[in-house]
Amino acid sequence: MRVNLNADLGESFGAWKMGSDEALMPLINSANIACGMHAGDPATMAQTVDTACRFGVSIGAHPSFQDLIGFGRRPIQMQPRDIELLVLYQIGALQAIASARGSRVTHVKPHGALNNMAHDDDAIARAIAKGIRLADPNLIFVANIGSAMVLAGRQSGLTVALEAYADRRYDANARLLSRQRADSVIDDADEAAESVVRMVESQAIFSVDGQRIASPIHSICVHGDSAHAITIARTVRTALEKRQIDLVTLPQLHLEGGDSP
Amino acid sequence: MRVNLNADLGESFGAWKMGSDEALMPLINSANIACGMHAGDPATMAQTVDTACRFGVSIGAHPSFQDLIGFGRRPIQMQPRDIELLVLYQIGALQAIASARGSRVTHVKPHGALNNMAHDDDAIARAIAKGIRLADPNLIFVANIGSAMVLAGRQSGLTVALEAYADRRYDANARLLSRQRADSVIDDADEAAESVVRMVESQAIFSVDGQRIASPIHSICVHGDSAHAITIARTVRTALEKRQIDLVTLPQLHLEGGDSP
Amino acid sequence: MRVNLNADLGESFGAWKMGSDEALMPLINSANIACGMHAGDPATMAQTVDTACRFGVSIGAHPSFQDLIGFGRRPIQMQPRDIELLVLYQIGALQAIASARGSRVTHVKPHGALNNMAHDDDAIARAIAKGIRLADPNLIFVANIGSAMVLAGRQSGLTVALEAYADRRYDANARLLSRQRADSVIDDADEAAESVVRMVESQAIFSVDGQRIASPIHSICVHGDSAHAITIARTVRTALEKRQIDLVTLPQLHLEGGDSP
Amino acid sequence: MRVNLNADLGESFGAWKMGSDEALMPLINSANIACGMHAGDPATMAQTVDTACRFGVSIGAHPSFQDLIGFGRRPIQMQPRDIELLVLYQIGALQAIASARGSRVTHVKPHGALNNMAHDDDAIARAIAKGIRLADPNLIFVANIGSAMVLAGRQSGLTVALEAYADRRYDANARLLSRQRADSVIDDADEAAESVVRMVESQAIFSVDGQRIASPIHSICVHGDSAHAITIARTVRTALEKRQIDLVTLPQLHLEGGDSP
Repeated sequence: MRVNLNADLGESFGAWKMGSDEALMPLINSANIACGMHAGDPATMAQTVDTACRFGVSIGAHPSFQDLIGFGRRPIQMQPRDIELLVLYQIGALQAIASARGSRVTHVKPHGALNNMAHDDDAIARAIAKGIRLADPNLIFVANIGSAMVLAGRQSGLTVALEAYADRRYDANARLLSRQRADSVIDDADEAAESVVRMVESQAIFSVDGQRIASPIHSICVHGDSAHAITIARTVRTALEKRQIDLVTLPQLHLEGGDSP
Repeated sequence: MRVNLNADLGESFGAWKMGSDEALMPLINSANIACGMHAGDPATMAQTVDTACRFGVSIGAHPSFQDLIGFGRRPIQMQPRDIELLVLYQIGALQAIASARGSRVTHVKPHGALNNMAHDDDAIARAIAKGIRLADPNLIFVANIGSAMVLAGRQSGLTVALEAYADRRYDANARLLSRQRADSVIDDADEAAESVVRMVESQAIFSVDGQRIASPIHSICVHGDSAHAITIARTVRTALEKRQIDLVTLPQLHLEGGDSP
Repeated sequence: MRVNLNADLGESFGAWKMGSDEALMPLINSANIACGMHAGDPATMAQTVDTACRFGVSIGAHPSFQDLIGFGRRPIQMQPRDIELLVLYQIGALQAIASARGSRVTHVKPHGALNNMAHDDDAIARAIAKGIRLADPNLIFVANIGSAMVLAGRQSGLTVALEAYADRRYDANARLLSRQRADSVIDDADEAAESVVRMVESQAIFSVDGQRIASPIHSICVHGDSAHAITIARTVRTALEKRQIDLVTLPQLHLEGGDSP
Repeated sequence: MRVNLNADLGESFGAWKMGSDEALMPLINSANIACGMHAGDPATMAQTVDTACRFGVSIGAHPSFQDLIGFGRRPIQMQPRDIELLVLYQIGALQAIASARGSRVTHVKPHGALNNMAHDDDAIARAIAKGIRLADPNLIFVANIGSAMVLAGRQSGLTVALEAYADRRYDANARLLSRQRADSVIDDADEAAESVVRMVESQAIFSVDGQRIASPIHSICVHGDSAHAITIARTVRTALEKRQIDLVTLPQLHLEGGDSP
């Protein structure tokens, strides 16, 4: 039994620092690296790639809407074709930097509002998948379980890694509970770890009202934006290791590719 | 006898349009495409790549300081290592877009203040050359005759294309006359065409005070930012064609590479 | 009988030029000046203020979402309180520049997506009104006829100028026809002029299906983003002058203020 | 005997936090607030104004070059007239926000590279002074002792507050030692406090080689970008209080104005 732990990193920008990349990197297997549109700059990207390499963490692009002031968290209406090019631009920039540091980009996970919008919007999900495939058809598309991105990725011929969250709760339709709800987030580290182990061992997610929704669980997203988040990540990792669940990079999952497009 | 005509294109940004790419493209052989830092956005880059392909124009990156409001024309102090990564980022973004459109990036020419600063500053010139080589060691580095970029490019093992300007005058040290001087710019289209033909046929540039400075002339830079600039470009092209001078893309120059680094 | 002609100006940014401010300025009475968030920069703002003063055109702020690449045309989700401060920031910046040039800001008209969203969204409309009132309670709020901004402005105690479009058609609910519809825009200059005269003389707007919707018509918005737009503006102005309708600045309308808040 | 303690605040931007404004505010008398060009956004500006008011801290604008990625620390060549408008824009934006929060802007201190360049460059110093005066001739211009800004401010008719640094050492020409030098910064909190008390009691600064350079000492700049910086600020404040030196806001210094311009 194996699973991947992924996290968003490299979200500093110029003089502004964000996240605890050094603390988080030893805990995860795959890093989603900001590419300059919501966070990240060439120097931060190179440094994050180097840190990832040092810890044997595989590298992914974390493309976003072009919105520094909103940190890519604000929904922005764009034409699918422009989203495809926006994603492609960001992957290309990271590919060049990763290659120069002796590494390479092996996955892509959309950031923030772009990810949220692509959860339900087929056209956006397809545009992202197309941008990924144009950058490199061997890239793994990390997609939320139950999202439109899963089908869009597969139909584009991409390998799709199904992702669940360590610290979020789901409804009966496999959707994340809205952050408006008091019970949307799992704050307790032990509870998060228990939830993750249960998901991985059951290959299913569980809704707050007790439903079991079967799904492969390829990757678990953890966060590193606070000391508490680091504690959750560490607790999750330790719990998985105790259960002899292998923690592997996304390429090491050896997932099968999607349909030939 | 052969020479290349290059120009800066794709310098629109979002709703703002700049240049007459459609009018200029049929007149040139190689396009330096803005990569999002001083101008250009993913959609503009893709469209410019497509137009270049349509006219058989070869594609180059035109990397710049990160300065939209200053259009990359303001000198900015940066560490050489950060310049290297800034250049690499921009080339990578364009490589991904060019590849997706069935084309590829074959040269790089720095933009504006970055180009000006690299003219005399060895460390900046080397940082640019390193960024280019890391992106792709087969990229042709388009460098002003007499600039620090020529040596930096060759020492990095890059192929260097030596560039002169159609509409500028030089001093006895092969430097462009300062724009402060009334005679720095050649406004007359016929005079610009005559100057270009003379440079190409003599393989030399000529200073305002009559000095002849021998140098291979690989590429001539023309502009497209006004109707008058388009007229100059057209007149230059016609004059070269009349003299049976072949107009070729940068790769078609078959220049020899630099030293093995 | 009197009416105001307003237009958006000062929408250049750094090296990028937009609009024909010099051609449009003699045709209008009030200018909505971009304040740096979707377009405009301090130098452009000062120059636009100067040009407006030269032509006796009154000055307004044209605040927007912070979105250069999207030119403020992309709907962005923001908290009302943040919108209020965003509007206030932009008005303040223009007030300082206008005052330094011996002029002053006398009205505010939201730009692009901010205007569109405030058409129907009471919370956004109130946030804009609050931002305006905090900047200066004597500012005139230019609001689309039938929009949520009209009530929000009045309830904030602001003077509201009711605005119609020279080149757009309306439905029976006084809404602009969607730009998706082929008949949404009036392309013919004479037809636009006729429509404007009819609205002003009738103090009503007329829907495409022939409904008459009574409303004071304080200001007519014209555009200057193309030679054709300039022609429409000139034709509208000439038609109004022929009918002895006075063309006045927004302050010269001497509109009554809103409710005491 | 009295002196002012000032610090740079409000340097967060969107999702990125910087500095410990809550920890620093009770220690200082006057806050230099970022205005959106190198840091700061409307919401951050309003919140910083509110915090300053809560602690009786007077409010100043901290205008900068337009350079988010460089945090305003990179020297940028601009025309003096454009610098004047850039400064004016930023002051105006903060004036509007401060006024809306029931406060007002009473001083201006340029940020980063703009401050550094204005130290020696008369044209830039005059441009800043002119921008300040145009915003409000009663604004206090906080200028480094020995800088071109002192004369430029006075000649513009502005009140100039002479500023020294708590944690920096000076050469015999009253210049800050270059940060290249190992001894440029005072790291020890007690030594910084002792240095400040000595400067204030002597109304002089002292160079590393023992020279005494007489100058009024109106304001001392402290920092808040690390826990250590907060410790220095607290130690400086405590030392001044022990010596019965009154800590006052910039307006409470009741400085005389400059020459009538």
